[in-house]
Amino acid sequence: MGRLSTLFGPERVAVIGASESEGSVGRAITENLLASFDGEVLAVNPNAEEVLGLTCYDGIGDVDSPGTVDVAVVVVPPGIAVDAIRQSGEVGIENVVVITAGFGETGSDGAARERELREVAEEHDLNLVGPNSLGVMSTPRGLNATFGNEMATEGDVSFMSQSGAFVTAVLDWAAERDVGFKDIVSVGNKTVLDEGDFIAEWGEDPETDVILGYLEDIDDGEQFIRTAREVTQDTPIVLVKSGRTDAGASAAASHTGAMAGSERAYEAGLEQAGTLRVESVQELFDYAQILSGQPLPDGEEIAIVTNAGGPGVMTTDAVGDSDLSLAEFTDETFEELRETMPEAANIYNPVDIIGDAPAERFETALETVLADDNVSMAVVVACPTAVLSFEELADVVVEAQQESGLPVATTLMGGKSVGAGREILSEAGIPQYFDPARAVGSLDALTEYRNISEREFEDPATFDVDRERAQEILDEAARRDTNRLGVEAMDLLDAYGIPTPQGDVVDSPGDAEAVAEEIGEEVVMKIVSPDILHKSDIGGVEVGVPPAEVRDTFEDLVVRARNYQQDATILGVQVQEMVDLDAGTETILGMNRDPQFGPLLLFGLGGIFVEVLEDTTVRVAPVSEPEASAMLDEIESAPLLRGARGRDPVDEAALVETVQRLSQLVTDFPAIVELDINPLVATPDGATAVDLRLTLDQEEL
Amino acid sequence: MGRLSTLFGPERVAVIGASESEGSVGRAITENLLASFDGEVLAVNPNAEEVLGLTCYDGIGDVDSPGTVDVAVVVVPPGIAVDAIRQSGEVGIENVVVITAGFGETGSDGAARERELREVAEEHDLNLVGPNSLGVMSTPRGLNATFGNEMATEGDVSFMSQSGAFVTAVLDWAAERDVGFKDIVSVGNKTVLDEGDFIAEWGEDPETDVILGYLEDIDDGEQFIRTAREVTQDTPIVLVKSGRTDAGASAAASHTGAMAGSERAYEAGLEQAGTLRVESVQELFDYAQILSGQPLPDGEEIAIVTNAGGPGVMTTDAVGDSDLSLAEFTDETFEELRETMPEAANIYNPVDIIGDAPAERFETALETVLADDNVSMAVVVACPTAVLSFEELADVVVEAQQESGLPVATTLMGGKSVGAGREILSEAGIPQYFDPARAVGSLDALTEYRNISEREFEDPATFDVDRERAQEILDEAARRDTNRLGVEAMDLLDAYGIPTPQGDVVDSPGDAEAVAEEIGEEVVMKIVSPDILHKSDIGGVEVGVPPAEVRDTFEDLVVRARNYQQDATILGVQVQEMVDLDAGTETILGMNRDPQFGPLLLFGLGGIFVEVLEDTTVRVAPVSEPEASAMLDEIESAPLLRGARGRDPVDEAALVETVQRLSQLVTDFPAIVELDINPLVATPDGATAVDLRLTLDQEEL
Repeated sequence: MGRLSTLFGPERVAVIGASESEGSVGRAITENLLASFDGEVLAVNPNAEEVLGLTCYDGIGDVDSPGTVDVAVVVVPPGIAVDAIRQSGEVGIENVVVITAGFGETGSDGAARERELREVAEEHDLNLVGPNSLGVMSTPRGLNATFGNEMATEGDVSFMSQSGAFVTAVLDWAAERDVGFKDIVSVGNKTVLDEGDFIAEWGEDPETDVILGYLEDIDDGEQFIRTAREVTQDTPIVLVKSGRTDAGASAAASHTGAMAGSERAYEAGLEQAGTLRVESVQELFDYAQILSGQPLPDGEEIAIVTNAGGPGVMTTDAVGDSDLSLAEFTDETFEELRETMPEAANIYNPVDIIGDAPAERFETALETVLADDNVSMAVVVACPTAVLSFEELADVVVEAQQESGLPVATTLMGGKSVGAGREILSEAGIPQYFDPARAVGSLDALTEYRNISEREFEDPATFDVDRERAQEILDEAARRDTNRLGVEAMDLLDAYGIPTPQGDVVDSPGDAEAVAEEIGEEVVMKIVSPDILHKSDIGGVEVGVPPAEVRDTFEDLVVRARNYQQDATILGVQVQEMVDLDAGTETILGMNRDPQFGPLLLFGLGGIFVEVLEDTTVRVAPVSEPEASAMLDEIESAPLLRGARGRDPVDEAALVETVQRLSQLVTDFPAIVELDINPLVATPDGATAVDLRLTLDQEEL
Repeated sequence: MGRLSTLFGPERVAVIGASESEGSVGRAITENLLASFDGEVLAVNPNAEEVLGLTCYDGIGDVDSPGTVDVAVVVVPPGIAVDAIRQSGEVGIENVVVITAGFGETGSDGAARERELREVAEEHDLNLVGPNSLGVMSTPRGLNATFGNEMATEGDVSFMSQSGAFVTAVLDWAAERDVGFKDIVSVGNKTVLDEGDFIAEWGEDPETDVILGYLEDIDDGEQFIRTAREVTQDTPIVLVKSGRTDAGASAAASHTGAMAGSERAYEAGLEQAGTLRVESVQELFDYAQILSGQPLPDGEEIAIVTNAGGPGVMTTDAVGDSDLSLAEFTDETFEELRETMPEAANIYNPVDIIGDAPAERFETALETVLADDNVSMAVVVACPTAVLSFEELADVVVEAQQESGLPVATTLMGGKSVGAGREILSEAGIPQYFDPARAVGSLDALTEYRNISEREFEDPATFDVDRERAQEILDEAARRDTNRLGVEAMDLLDAYGIPTPQGDVVDSPGDAEAVAEEIGEEVVMKIVSPDILHKSDIGGVEVGVPPAEVRDTFEDLVVRARNYQQDATILGVQVQEMVDLDAGTETILGMNRDPQFGPLLLFGLGGIFVEVLEDTTVRVAPVSEPEASAMLDEIESAPLLRGARGRDPVDEAALVETVQRLSQLVTDFPAIVELDINPLVATPDGATAVDLRLTLDQEEL
């Protein structure tokens, strides 16, 4: 059991602010607790003697053995809530649920109060829910410490929500259906306990089979990923993360930073965390239902058994839209179906056992396909006919599913006729929809979770790098008091083993010549100045300079820079080996730092691919080798790295290693808030960083 | 009224094959007709005296005034069905519904029978439904000429289905809900009447407000597009066209033909026809509901009114996913809301009137935003609270909607509490869902239909072309008995005014020199032979040939061709002006002929864009100027035509004209079954077809 086990499974709960006043939150909570909680309820209110039959205490310190109270539910006004919570901590109460609103969500006074609340909670090491929470529920003990109208029925799904109203909506909706819950928490302002804490708790809770969440933000993305990866090995997490469509996030332009916006970080982070992210409330509960009711499939192959051709085609379309594939039956299965099905039946998948099929024929067909080793799951699609009882059908489906141990979903295409069939299936945990797309979509989600649960999260590789040299380069920048670095910082990449063209930044014509002679062929020369962003525009770049002209070119570049801006800081001139861009494929590798998830790596092909087609992919760093490798796979233009149209395939291993080395660099140095290697030229023999720009946050150095 | 008015609104219906035999189709139909039809039912069966109280006639000719029977429903065995239908035609019956199966769907005997059926129907000009149909329903007269279990309730939606089972499923489902229908037809094998006929009929039917269809194929795509364009000006058509995901259709490779597969034709054709194509049964009925219940919006701007922040954010996400946009309120609206809403409310869109809002506050807020000129529609999102009655809320929403005349959808986020509110909204035609994504999705579909209904379908332009010359070129190919043409047919493009490089195909060194001299600069020379597909590989192409070397090069090319294949047919050598590919953007313009929709045009950027990124778009020809123009807009790489990354924008008008001219060419000559202009080089000054391949169907010449 996790550290929040007494929050969700308390013996004694005290309501601080209990009340009899009609319509008050203090009354609603006290009533809800008295209605079904099988532990002790205590009332605290200095202005009352008795509340709803409970003796009322003046303060939490006044109850018997206050240290054995498991949960204090706080509903007093914000002005006195912090004190009440401090007292709870002082007497040794571990869990506090703060219903009271009027904290960070209400301006500067509230924000100050919330800081105070956090300090109190830290001082007493409180497990604090809220503030501004609807409360907490847990069905096994009948705990309803909320001010909502409904109590959840028992189930194996635990649910957290950043919207209290959504909790009331879900409970109201669930009351009409067979949807049960283990724990429910309205997380409120998440001052102390946040989504990471709850998934950690439920990950250890044997009574929670599925975790659902409605979130508007994630406080600590890095910690969330770490925790969720662990949890999702055994317990699926299905999330609505709202605020997806922030216009800004995807209105990407050519700039790396703009493209690696916050929604992209959530998308990448939630995927790396192993969560199933859904876009609608319907999917949230569809997925919860199948994940809690059905076993995981051992593959992607689905069999369709139907009594109607048209709906069979619709279901096949839905399979085509999913990551599932139609199972190819073994010869034994075909033989069996040929023997047992009428001649007019179609024994190929989708199996159409035709309109005159009674439940028994469904039974035979379903058992036959589920026994096939090539079948990992099945969907039953039935239209109402005179000879088919949906109730009998439900019975045979339940039996076949349970015998086979494979997941099954159903589409009983009717309303009136479905009748009792619906309940039989629901009780057995078998999903039932009118629309085949939803049945198949649910099985698809189940399969996606199977893949997540089997995923092995590799640790990011740690390369042998020269961290001290990198630190020196950054410190040097800090001494120059500059936040924007360019090619003069190429050594940073070199220190982390990322190949750069031969060359150096020099500050005299003589040194320039020496570098050029070492290179031994024509070179590229660029003025290096933090004040000159567009070097080419002012004649600050010379390409194909023969060694003999290097001295003169040095002088020319400096003169042009001075002409452009008299007082420009000139750090020197870069003398660099020529990189034949035509011989390779230009890629771009960048990073910007997301406020929630930290360093976000971006990879794509350069030029039109990033600027026009916006064909890029992102990952939260640090990335493991498989994650870096997946980035290469994900871009649409990946075939261009792999020999499309007669090109030589590039050295993918080198690219993957470069991604990992950059991952290590930006993880090691939080001071680097933005970085672009553009282009990173990939050739059949390696990958070379040709240009660099980065932005520092001096305070992090 | 359309020509099928007596099929759906008959006075007299005869059942040929009426029966009392328990469980027979003949009995089911007769019973269904007797149950609710307010006209006369006649029974025909030579083996019975009476059926279910009806006098039984030996043959259709034996009933009183058989010519005044409006519909004959045929349920006799396939062996005698055609005769029965012939007799019906002979006595002057216009409408026949053939329930009998055992025609084209059952092998060669059945196919022969179906041909016979078609001939009989043509001879007597019968409106024939089926065969292999579940039957026909029409609620105003209580007509149930089906063998299903349910009769539809009255409504304004007409529904056609290529699956009889799906009709029974929908009726069973609708019986539990408030979903009504005008006409329903199970189209069966569509031997005579097909989807085009039914949409034409319902387009003229004042009692049909929305047309729904489940189709597995469309018989005559061109006619369907023509009819649907007319109909959808006034009546929306919502379709499930199944078989979308045929693996082959979208597994596109570099070849134009492969990419312009049949599913792409359906996608383009159904869009050009003005239909709303949906992918799931849920969408089919969601869209039907809002289209039948709500007025069309006058814009895309939506206002959200909610009592809960979280669900408000979810709804905003759904708007972000749609083509709708959040309305920006006028100052008057803000003022009004500021005055009437509590201070803690959020008066910006989404308008959050907070958790203590009773129905009256919803009323005020909703009326205020609906009165704003910047608002075209609204969605109300409500979570259950102690102070809100969903029933009262439903009342105020209905009133506000009706007063404003703008469309409204609702998300009452609950189950139990929604109660009577659901019925009030349903009766007023206002959609109600738990999931905000469905409410917004429905309003989005409504808006999409508004755009369709306002779309003005321009006629395709007719250019002044040299059709005779084109005919000669094709005839010439027919004389040579060849189906595959290449550059030797460039004149075909020329004849239709599509610019080609200067040059000609010649058959002697002397002529080659003459052409080159006329061009007056270096030329490209290519061997022209239907037997040599990959000219470059055998040295059959020479680029940059100076006029002086043209004679020798001619000889060289012919020798190389002979060395490659002694008996190759050599049509000559093409001598062509050099086109500077770097100065333009390579595009590809192709056509292949779809069995249902006819000529399908394909456009995209050449090279990696078509081969690697599969970034192409298709349209059924003939295309109008706006349609041709839309093709340019639709590709992802469109910015590359428009000056992205410092390029000069190409002459889009020239490209659009080329698309239209090719459209005219392939429409004029059905013999051209496949054609590729690759590349079609677009420059700032025009578009030039540099290479051509086409395939002919000699039989069409």
